[in-house]
Amino acid sequence: MDETPSARLAAFAAGLRYEDIPQPVVERAVDLFVDWAGSALAGKGVRPVEIVAAFAARMGPADGPSELLASRGSSSPLFAALVNGAASHVAEQDDVHNGSVFHPAAVVFPAALAVAQANRASGRDFIAAVVAGYEAGIRIGEFLGRSHYRIFHTTGTAGALAAAAAAGRLLGLNPAAMLDAFGSAGTQAAGLWEFLRDAADSKPLHTGKAAANGLIAAYLAADGFTGARRILEGAQGMGAGMSSDADPARLTDRLGVRWALAETSFKFHASCRHTHPAADALLKAMQDNDLTIDDIGSVTALVHQAAIDVLGPVTAPASVHQAKFSMGTTLGLIAAHGRAGMGEFQNGFDSPEIAGFRERVAMRLDDEVNAAYPARWIGKVALETRDGRHIEARVDDPKGDPGNTLSREEIDAKVRGLAAFSRAADAAEMDMVLPRLWTIERANHIGALMPARGAGPS
Amino acid sequence: MDETPSARLAAFAAGLRYEDIPQPVVERAVDLFVDWAGSALAGKGVRPVEIVAAFAARMGPADGPSELLASRGSSSPLFAALVNGAASHVAEQDDVHNGSVFHPAAVVFPAALAVAQANRASGRDFIAAVVAGYEAGIRIGEFLGRSHYRIFHTTGTAGALAAAAAAGRLLGLNPAAMLDAFGSAGTQAAGLWEFLRDAADSKPLHTGKAAANGLIAAYLAADGFTGARRILEGAQGMGAGMSSDADPARLTDRLGVRWALAETSFKFHASCRHTHPAADALLKAMQDNDLTIDDIGSVTALVHQAAIDVLGPVTAPASVHQAKFSMGTTLGLIAAHGRAGMGEFQNGFDSPEIAGFRERVAMRLDDEVNAAYPARWIGKVALETRDGRHIEARVDDPKGDPGNTLSREEIDAKVRGLAAFSRAADAAEMDMVLPRLWTIERANHIGALMPARGAGPS
Repeated sequence: MDETPSARLAAFAAGLRYEDIPQPVVERAVDLFVDWAGSALAGKGVRPVEIVAAFAARMGPADGPSELLASRGSSSPLFAALVNGAASHVAEQDDVHNGSVFHPAAVVFPAALAVAQANRASGRDFIAAVVAGYEAGIRIGEFLGRSHYRIFHTTGTAGALAAAAAAGRLLGLNPAAMLDAFGSAGTQAAGLWEFLRDAADSKPLHTGKAAANGLIAAYLAADGFTGARRILEGAQGMGAGMSSDADPARLTDRLGVRWALAETSFKFHASCRHTHPAADALLKAMQDNDLTIDDIGSVTALVHQAAIDVLGPVTAPASVHQAKFSMGTTLGLIAAHGRAGMGEFQNGFDSPEIAGFRERVAMRLDDEVNAAYPARWIGKVALETRDGRHIEARVDDPKGDPGNTLSREEIDAKVRGLAAFSRAADAAEMDMVLPRLWTIERANHIGALMPARGAGPS
Repeated sequence: MDETPSARLAAFAAGLRYEDIPQPVVERAVDLFVDWAGSALAGKGVRPVEIVAAFAARMGPADGPSELLASRGSSSPLFAALVNGAASHVAEQDDVHNGSVFHPAAVVFPAALAVAQANRASGRDFIAAVVAGYEAGIRIGEFLGRSHYRIFHTTGTAGALAAAAAAGRLLGLNPAAMLDAFGSAGTQAAGLWEFLRDAADSKPLHTGKAAANGLIAAYLAADGFTGARRILEGAQGMGAGMSSDADPARLTDRLGVRWALAETSFKFHASCRHTHPAADALLKAMQDNDLTIDDIGSVTALVHQAAIDVLGPVTAPASVHQAKFSMGTTLGLIAAHGRAGMGEFQNGFDSPEIAGFRERVAMRLDDEVNAAYPARWIGKVALETRDGRHIEARVDDPKGDPGNTLSREEIDAKVRGLAAFSRAADAAEMDMVLPRLWTIERANHIGALMPARGAGPS
């Protein structure tokens, strides 16, 4: 095999064995899996997700080997990946890798779970596939770079290849076939940020389709369907067409030595990750200075450029989902409630108090924050109190980052909260489900994660 | 509704009625439909197409309301669009619109037929939907421009929106919902040329996925799934991300007055359209000067830049499909046989005679040809004979262009030839099928086009 960056990355993904993965990385993969399950369940009942699920029911088989987590139905792997992928990202509670600005869980787990259930894969192979998906997808996101992210939703684009890596690993693709799968995934890769200014429903479509398209690429490659061998770095590949600062060296950065999965952050607030550093800094400013919302005159969030690009267009959010991309709304909820969770957004994103606070929040590009981004997401705010004080606060590692991560207890509680919020499962059911999730790597065969429909206590 | 270019184009596609379409345009739409059926049947038995069909059989329902033309099976509309779309483009015999460098039939008809059969639409509604797909897709291809086509396969990208327009028209989307469908289609739009240098299988994947993705967008929009309202011209839309010369004025160019469908060319040779002008010019040079292949020392094809971009990397074709992107191979077959059809490529693309001729063919950028492109595809060759003569020839309208179009008899014969070549149907079956195709606009309900499996004479 030619030793192009794409080929080296594909060979790594195809060859990764459970035994090669350091134990802390395995454990973090399980953490991320459990955390993801919460996000997939949180999508239940959300209008765009239910529309995608209805489409799957109309176009796909009535049942199959792969589970639809929120509805507890089943279908073929393709539709399970599509529906679970759509569900996973809509609550904005799924994980994120800072350096690549990529949400791996929402695309990797739906594809991996669908194939693992269809093939009755072992928990160890499932974990190896998931790690392959994270390692590939994160490096591809880094390769595509900041210029890509200005226009494209990296989770949709790099996500198709991440899903292909995970699905392909579970299908036992050899390195050449994995490279074919990368080619077919990359030539399907899509997702534009344009939807955001209209508060349109595209985000769950991006994750659902990335998971499904990567899965398609892997199954086709298993049957001998060939793809471009340099879909990433080639002269007519993704980097050439969809980036102006693509760096092929990132594709193979310390493969097998650096574990990018372990750099992935959990989301604590239920909003776009670009709001989190400032949210944590605001919380710190209020705690350190014993402030309430009524004390605050105005807030300036000192941010990186990508925060301005993504959040800037959202000036008066029209929906819960769009509010999660409003810096002013998120900081308002933090100021009012000390938290910005699912319930706070759902129940009051446009209350007079929050809408009024929102108008008093500005974003400003900060040189230090911007220079550190995307490797580090530093939080800085400057605020003026109503009684004339100027207060600044700073958080080096926002809550959920590897340096300030969630404990297993916090993840467990987060997942229970998400399932309860969406009514995807009641507490007794989650008592049954969570131990199964936490021990996934010891499963002989990956089976259904959720109780059968109607089987649990009411 | 806001009167953006995207909104105006969506409103046109949603509102187009059969009665609004001039009769010559209706007739040309029927010509293109019959011509397309030949290409869809020609995909039968071609390895990558059969892999896609096997994937559909594995992931989709065992039968459904929509027909799989080549296999005479059926499935849900999604898989019918996918499989027929993959089949339609692989023989390189489907139509092309010069100005947009877009192959409308391969993406529009698979989506339209799948929905029309599912909804038992009338022939008139089918024709209106097809015209909507052509008119939208061609203008979107023109909007994306030459810079887009250098990296992206316009038939994959613009094709998703063309398919959405056709499917959306059949689903009765109102203008706002059609705009949503455009948004969801555009944010799924993909397809990179990188596969070509590896002779990889991506081209049928592009057309199959464009048809399927457009269909997804339309069904989602019918259920209220929203999309970006300026997916084409917006600051984070397709033009911004995937083109450097996007021109929004092209999106609404003389809607309802200019019928872009009627500008579409039929393919006569079984090769990439970029080879056709030079192929016709070589044929003219040989006929006018009474030359045989043995008389020819060398040939220079005087071409537009896109021909060099697309065909340039193909120096020693490794497969029948890649040979269709080799200028030298195509001209060699013309020189040897007077034609470059399916049989000539299949049986001798790499014979010593053709491979030897191929080495004596060069491409050179020609200012006049390049300036006229893409509105006109002028063919020019200069050749040196073995006995020392310098001969030039020129064709203003390559065979199949509107100024030099195929007659209905020629289309009928082409379709019969393609069906026979792929063994998708025998002559007696095509005697039954072709009258049904030629009268499609008079059907009360669009039903199956092909005889049931095994129903025809053997």
